[in-house]
Amino acid sequence: MDIRAVIMAGGVGTRFWPLSRKQKPKQFLPIISDRTMIEETAHRLLPLISPSQIYTIANRSQTKTITKLLPQIPDENLLVEPKGKNTAPSLMLATAVIYLQNPEAVVIALPADHLIKDAARFLKKLEAAGQAALEGTPIVTFGIPPSSPSTGYGYIQFSPQDSTELSGETFFSVEKFKEKPGLEQAKEFLDAGNYFWNSGMFLWQAKTFPIKLEQYAPELFPFWKKIVKALEAKQESLLISVFDDIPSVSIDYALMERVQPVWMCRGDFGWSDVGAWSSLSDLWAKDDRGNALRGDGMLLDSTNCLVHNPGKITALVGVEDLIIVDTEDALLVCRKDCDQKVKQIVKHLDKRGKKEYL
Amino acid sequence: MDIRAVIMAGGVGTRFWPLSRKQKPKQFLPIISDRTMIEETAHRLLPLISPSQIYTIANRSQTKTITKLLPQIPDENLLVEPKGKNTAPSLMLATAVIYLQNPEAVVIALPADHLIKDAARFLKKLEAAGQAALEGTPIVTFGIPPSSPSTGYGYIQFSPQDSTELSGETFFSVEKFKEKPGLEQAKEFLDAGNYFWNSGMFLWQAKTFPIKLEQYAPELFPFWKKIVKALEAKQESLLISVFDDIPSVSIDYALMERVQPVWMCRGDFGWSDVGAWSSLSDLWAKDDRGNALRGDGMLLDSTNCLVHNPGKITALVGVEDLIIVDTEDALLVCRKDCDQKVKQIVKHLDKRGKKEYL
Repeated sequence: MDIRAVIMAGGVGTRFWPLSRKQKPKQFLPIISDRTMIEETAHRLLPLISPSQIYTIANRSQTKTITKLLPQIPDENLLVEPKGKNTAPSLMLATAVIYLQNPEAVVIALPADHLIKDAARFLKKLEAAGQAALEGTPIVTFGIPPSSPSTGYGYIQFSPQDSTELSGETFFSVEKFKEKPGLEQAKEFLDAGNYFWNSGMFLWQAKTFPIKLEQYAPELFPFWKKIVKALEAKQESLLISVFDDIPSVSIDYALMERVQPVWMCRGDFGWSDVGAWSSLSDLWAKDDRGNALRGDGMLLDSTNCLVHNPGKITALVGVEDLIIVDTEDALLVCRKDCDQKVKQIVKHLDKRGKKEYL
Repeated sequence: MDIRAVIMAGGVGTRFWPLSRKQKPKQFLPIISDRTMIEETAHRLLPLISPSQIYTIANRSQTKTITKLLPQIPDENLLVEPKGKNTAPSLMLATAVIYLQNPEAVVIALPADHLIKDAARFLKKLEAAGQAALEGTPIVTFGIPPSSPSTGYGYIQFSPQDSTELSGETFFSVEKFKEKPGLEQAKEFLDAGNYFWNSGMFLWQAKTFPIKLEQYAPELFPFWKKIVKALEAKQESLLISVFDDIPSVSIDYALMERVQPVWMCRGDFGWSDVGAWSSLSDLWAKDDRGNALRGDGMLLDSTNCLVHNPGKITALVGVEDLIIVDTEDALLVCRKDCDQKVKQIVKHLDKRGKKEYL
């Protein structure tokens, strides 16, 4: 099986401000280990996929960073999206590149900034999912067994009774992709049991992808043909003009919510999208009062705090449930259960013209 | 009246860590205005006392700082204590210097790091207190009408019915200096009404001082004579050896708790000892949610915080009643009502050998 990974590294997340900045989004931060998240994502694949079969897609400036972080990936695999147009266009480009190299290849599209704790289990399932993508010609995805009625994820509704066994894994037939629900609906999803979180990881055979596009996303299919033509002609200007015109749309919305069949494999390999500062509380080592620190610390009567302040000392006195992130030019102090509002800080900074902090 | 001020600048306060350090104690910090506290203290006196009548006493390294901050004070008035031996020895030295210049002079001893909001009122009372020190030969002090049953101050018990009117001010006869009380006792003091806070400001005529020492602190009187002799002989080595032997003791303990008579004037001129970070909450400008910031800020759902982080931006999300102080190498996040524990942080740092943060 010729399996190729496309690491989507074009994100510009704001939820890890002030550590994450426009020029340094989450995938380029070493927040879950001493390696950046994109390095973790790529290295995790290596036992199954060689560097020459790994691709990244991002904008030009991000790609410069990737070159330094992942020198083992050939330069020609570091794909540059001429314009940021969300995930559907960038995955069309990446799949077209692979399609022209080997239309039989299986493509796995992966976010660059997610955590998978049990890499061996993930790879075993990934290999099975690749087989599934070949044999049944479906789109394959990983659904994450939900641990809470989160309103931060989309959900995948599947049929427990309609499944296929393959390479020792079970693939459930997907009924519907659901957008991020409200809390009440999320609770209903959890009670129902056949709704898993959408991990944003998808597999397809390269030659299957345009067929699905033509049938389920006909408005995008002409752009596919133009992208293939531009790549064959090696005309960058042509590619740029395609990206000028192509609609900005996510792969979820453009394809996943419509396409049939989709098979879902249980993503029970310790996945986390590491969506905000508080998610690191479960990943960093903690003292016996639940405090997790990066940097020197001196703590008095303080519990359940998360501190990122390497190179400095942080003294806490009588505080609890705080996220504290100190950088050269900005300091964040945030109640743990408010960390989703950090992106609002970034919005306000933008509005008030404080570009130096973005 | 020849009135001379002695500014006691030898303190090594730790309660403003991490801004205050061994080499930069509170009196050298611009925390209540854009001038350091010792500058505020000296400038406040100028309408009544000329720079040539102002003295400072501190260690050698602190005196170097004072030279830069207060260039208008003659160098010979910047007195250096050969060794840090608490306030009694340093005030003995300063008073001896003045005594040899003019034994009729009145000395006012002032901490370098206190705030007085109504300087004009203070000077008016200071002038009257000077007169009182001349006419009745008592020690004169300012008692602060207590605004709370604080356990952080010593108290002065006075006789409301035993008072002297002088220059339009009332001077009450002091019965007893009380050490810092427990909370219950502090409440009793407030209920009684005739207990004011000890401001640490004292006046005496230069020639009265040795008489009082001889009578009420006889163990110190021989050192007074040696200090005067060393000064007359201009022998620094002699002075050093006196300070090697002199006991380390506060003026409160050595003299004030024993001496008679002491007269107390009402210190109702907006005094604060600015004893810890939270005391700045009442001094800095606040937004409509009670937040006081030094430095750029971006605040979401946050109230009653005090932030010192000039030159950087501080983002607060969903927090309240925090003191946040960021410096180049150290960050403090402290619940407002715990700020007395900041000195414990400094102690722990010292114990753990983290000298670089002291």
